[in-house]
Amino acid sequence: MNSDEFREASKQLTDYIADYIEGLRQRSVVPDVEPGYLNDLVPELPPEQGEPWCNLFNDIEPVIMKGMTHWHSPRFHAYFPTANSYPAICGDMLSTALACIGFTWNAAPSCTELEMRMMDWLAWMIGLPEYFQFKYGPGGGVIQTTASESTLIAILGARTQILKQYGLDNRIADDQDDDEDQEDGQGGQYDGHSKHYELLGRMVAYASNQSHSSVEKAAMLSATRIRLIPVDREKNYSMNVDRLRKRIIADKQRGLIPMIVIVTLGTTNTCSFDNLFRIGEICSEFRIWLHVDAAYAGSAFVCPEFRHYMHGIEHATSFTMNPHKWLLVNFDCNAFWVKDKSLIEDAFIVNPVYLKHENQNRILDYRHWQIPLGRRFRSLKMWFVFRSYGLNGLQKHIRKQIELAKLFGQLLKTDDRFELFDEIRMGLVCFRLKGSNELNEKLLQSINHGKEIFLTPAKVNEQFIIRFAICSRTTEEMDVQFSWNLIQKHADQIILQRPK
Amino acid sequence: MNSDEFREASKQLTDYIADYIEGLRQRSVVPDVEPGYLNDLVPELPPEQGEPWCNLFNDIEPVIMKGMTHWHSPRFHAYFPTANSYPAICGDMLSTALACIGFTWNAAPSCTELEMRMMDWLAWMIGLPEYFQFKYGPGGGVIQTTASESTLIAILGARTQILKQYGLDNRIADDQDDDEDQEDGQGGQYDGHSKHYELLGRMVAYASNQSHSSVEKAAMLSATRIRLIPVDREKNYSMNVDRLRKRIIADKQRGLIPMIVIVTLGTTNTCSFDNLFRIGEICSEFRIWLHVDAAYAGSAFVCPEFRHYMHGIEHATSFTMNPHKWLLVNFDCNAFWVKDKSLIEDAFIVNPVYLKHENQNRILDYRHWQIPLGRRFRSLKMWFVFRSYGLNGLQKHIRKQIELAKLFGQLLKTDDRFELFDEIRMGLVCFRLKGSNELNEKLLQSINHGKEIFLTPAKVNEQFIIRFAICSRTTEEMDVQFSWNLIQKHADQIILQRPK
Repeated sequence: MNSDEFREASKQLTDYIADYIEGLRQRSVVPDVEPGYLNDLVPELPPEQGEPWCNLFNDIEPVIMKGMTHWHSPRFHAYFPTANSYPAICGDMLSTALACIGFTWNAAPSCTELEMRMMDWLAWMIGLPEYFQFKYGPGGGVIQTTASESTLIAILGARTQILKQYGLDNRIADDQDDDEDQEDGQGGQYDGHSKHYELLGRMVAYASNQSHSSVEKAAMLSATRIRLIPVDREKNYSMNVDRLRKRIIADKQRGLIPMIVIVTLGTTNTCSFDNLFRIGEICSEFRIWLHVDAAYAGSAFVCPEFRHYMHGIEHATSFTMNPHKWLLVNFDCNAFWVKDKSLIEDAFIVNPVYLKHENQNRILDYRHWQIPLGRRFRSLKMWFVFRSYGLNGLQKHIRKQIELAKLFGQLLKTDDRFELFDEIRMGLVCFRLKGSNELNEKLLQSINHGKEIFLTPAKVNEQFIIRFAICSRTTEEMDVQFSWNLIQKHADQIILQRPK
Repeated sequence: MNSDEFREASKQLTDYIADYIEGLRQRSVVPDVEPGYLNDLVPELPPEQGEPWCNLFNDIEPVIMKGMTHWHSPRFHAYFPTANSYPAICGDMLSTALACIGFTWNAAPSCTELEMRMMDWLAWMIGLPEYFQFKYGPGGGVIQTTASESTLIAILGARTQILKQYGLDNRIADDQDDDEDQEDGQGGQYDGHSKHYELLGRMVAYASNQSHSSVEKAAMLSATRIRLIPVDREKNYSMNVDRLRKRIIADKQRGLIPMIVIVTLGTTNTCSFDNLFRIGEICSEFRIWLHVDAAYAGSAFVCPEFRHYMHGIEHATSFTMNPHKWLLVNFDCNAFWVKDKSLIEDAFIVNPVYLKHENQNRILDYRHWQIPLGRRFRSLKMWFVFRSYGLNGLQKHIRKQIELAKLFGQLLKTDDRFELFDEIRMGLVCFRLKGSNELNEKLLQSINHGKEIFLTPAKVNEQFIIRFAICSRTTEEMDVQFSWNLIQKHADQIILQRPK
C-alpha cells in the first residue's frame, strides 16, 4: 500500500466508521456465531503475494462484523462502559501514524511532556489533591494500560518502600559468587533463609471482598499475601472498616507488616463505595500505603456533585481511574497518580547504557513508571477529547448517563415482580426478579439469547443479580425504554414457564 | 465532534499523515527543544467549553511536531526499529473505532478468533514448531503489549508449575482465620515460615548478562532470584553455556530450584545470539522452562535463510518476538507463544461471576493469558499487514534492511579510523573509532547534537560502542550514504580537536 492507496483506503474507512457508529442501533448487539466460526472464513495460511485494499475492506463485514459484540450499541448494557468518541479516534490515528516510542524524554519529548500536562489537567478536572500534579509536585501522573497494571504497580511500590526500610531494594541479591574458578556446589547448602523472602512473606495487602478480580490477580502475580475483608450489607456492600482495623492490628501483633490497603470507589458488582475517609485515617495512623481504585466511578468526579464519594482522598498515596471507561477516551488509557514520584521510580529503575541520555536528570523518563519499556503516544487522544468536549461537555456526558440509569430505576419500580438490589449511585442499576437465583439466571439467559440487548450478572452475598449499565455515548431514553420493555417481555415468558 | 465533522477531520488527518510520512526526509530527526518546552505551548488548564477541530489540527505542528523525535525518518538509526506501515494504520484505525474489549470470547468473538488465527499464521511464517499453533495444539499464541510483559509472564508461568509440583498455586493462602468472633492477635506469632515464600526463595532464573533490561525488571517485579551468566567474547557475546550448566548444577546441589532460562536471540547491545541448541539441551536435561526472547530478530525468521539462528527451538517452552519492531505492524503488538496453554492459564485464573459466559469451556478466554483484563483488537492490524504485504513482501522488507546494514559495514571498512565491533548479522551495525571510550562518546554526542541523524550507544565488556540500526521502512541506500558521510565529518572534527 503506497501513500496514494493509503489516502484512498483511510478515507473509505473513515466513512465506513462513521456509518458504522451512526448505524449501531440497527444491528443486533450480540452476534449469532458459535465458537470456531471464523475458521471457515479466514484461510489457514497467509497469502504469498500481497492483496489489494479492496480485498481487505470487503472482508470487514462478513468476517469481523459477523462475530462482533457491539460495545457501542446504545443497547449494550453489559460489564462497564468502554469509551469511544470521534476526537479520540482522531487522536489515536495521529498517535499510530507518528508511532514514536516514548520510553525516555529524549526518545520523543512531546510524548512525555504532553502526557505530564494531560495528567495534570485530568487531576484538576476530577478534583484530586494538588500534590498529585507535577505542577505542584512531588507527585504526578502517568498513563498505564489498565487499572490491573496500576494496582500491581501500587503493590510493587509499597513493597519497595518496606524493603528500603530494611536496607534492601527490589533486586534479589545473587547469593552465589560468580567466580570463574569456583568449584560446583561451593557456598554450602541454601538454608532456606533469605531476608528478602522472609520480608515478602511478612507483608500483607488488604482490599474488600468486592474489589475487582484484578486486585486478587495483582496479588498473585506479585506473590503478595492478601486479605479480602468482608463487606457490610447494610452499608451498600462497602468494606467493613472495623474488621479491617482489627485485622491490621492482629497482623501487626503477629509480626506481619501491613503494606497496602486498596480502597474501591465504585465496585464492579454493584458500584459500591468503600469509606475512603475512615480507611484513610487507619492508613495514616499505621503508615500504610493507601491505593484508591476508582476505575469506573473516577470519571464522575469531573462533576463536583459526586466528589463527596472521594471524601478522605487527602490520605491517598496513589489513585487510579480509567478515562477509557467513562471519559470518552478510547482504550487503552488508564490514569495513575502517585503522591511522590520516587515511590514508583524506586520500584522500577534499571539503567542500561542504551537508554541513557543527557537530559535524564532534568525531567522524568516514564519507563521508570511502568512494567513495559515501550509506550505509545496515548496523551494525544486525551488532548483531543478534553479540548473537543471541554470540561462542560464531559460533565454533560456523565450527568446524562446517570440520569438514564435513574430512568431505568424508575421504570423498574413500576413492575412489582422486580426489585432494585441496591440504590443507583452512578450509571449502573443492579436488579433482580423477586425470587430464586435460578429464576434470575433463566431471565438473564433468555434476554441475552435474544441478542437485541446485552446484560451481565454479578453475585453478591450469594444473591445472583442482573447488572444494567449505561454504556454507549449514544444511548438515549428511547433505548432505555426499549430495553426495559424487552426485559419485561422475557420476564413474562420465564414466569409463565415456571412450574406452579 | 459529530459524525460529519469526524468525516472531515479524519480525512484531513489522513492527508496530513501521508504528507508527514512521505516528507520525513525533510525534517531534522531530533527536535531542537529543551525539557519543559511544552509548558508554554499548552495551557495549564483544560478549556471549559469545547473547541472546534481546526484548533486541534492547527496545534499539531507547533506543539507536537516541534518536540518530536521522528522514529520513522529514514535517517533515524537509534535503538531498534519500531514498525510502521500504511495497512497497519488502517487496521489500528478500525480497531480504535470498534473499541471492543476482547477479554472473553463472548465479549467479542471475532477479536479472540482472529487473534488465534493470526498467531497461527505468524508461527507458521517464522517457522516455529507446530506445537505452538492452536491448529495442532496444545499450545498457542497471544498478543501482549511488549516483550517485557511476555518475559514476566513466562517467569510467572514457570513459577506456577513449580508451585503446583508442591501442591500449591499462585495464591498465598490467607493464614488468618476470618471468623467474626475471633479475638485480636489470635493464631499466634507468625513464625516467618511459609512454604510458599520458602519455595519462591529457592527458585532461580537464568539469562545472559547481555539480555535486555526488561529481563532484570521482570525478575524484580516478580521477586525472582536471577543469575546473569557471563558471555563469551570469542563467541559473539553469547551466553557461556558451560557456566550456565555449572551454575545450574551448583544451585541444585545447594537445594535451589532452577526454574527458567531466558535465551536471547538478537541482543539489544550487539544483536548477538545465544546458543539455543546447547542451552535447550540443558533445559531438557534438567526439565527447566526455556523462554526464548527474539524480540527484534524474530521477525527475520520469515526468511528461511536466517532460521539457523533458531536451531534448537524444539526445546522451547515459550517464545516471544515483536511484530511491532520489525514486521511492519505498529506498536503495540508483541507475539508470545507457549507450548501448552495450561502452563499460562494456571498462573492467571481468577473467575468472578461477572466475566462468566456459556461458551467458556468451548474456546479460550485471552484474559487468562495476560496481566491486564482489558485488551484491544490488535490482530486487525496484523491481518491487514500480512495480507497487504503477503509473505513475499515481508521477506523483501527484512532482506532489504539487512542489505542496507551490510552496505553501512562496507562503507565503514573504507575508513581505517573505524572498526566494526562485531559481525553484522541483522539490521544492526556496532562500530567505534579505534581509540578510547571517551573519544567515541564525544563522537556520538557530536553526531546527535547535529540532529540530522540519531544514533544510540551500548557498553559491552567495558567498551563503549556506537549502534547504527536500520530502522525506517523508507530508508534507502542514499540515506545510509548520507549518514555515513555525516559520521565521517563528525569524526574529522573530533579527531582534529583531540590533544596530540
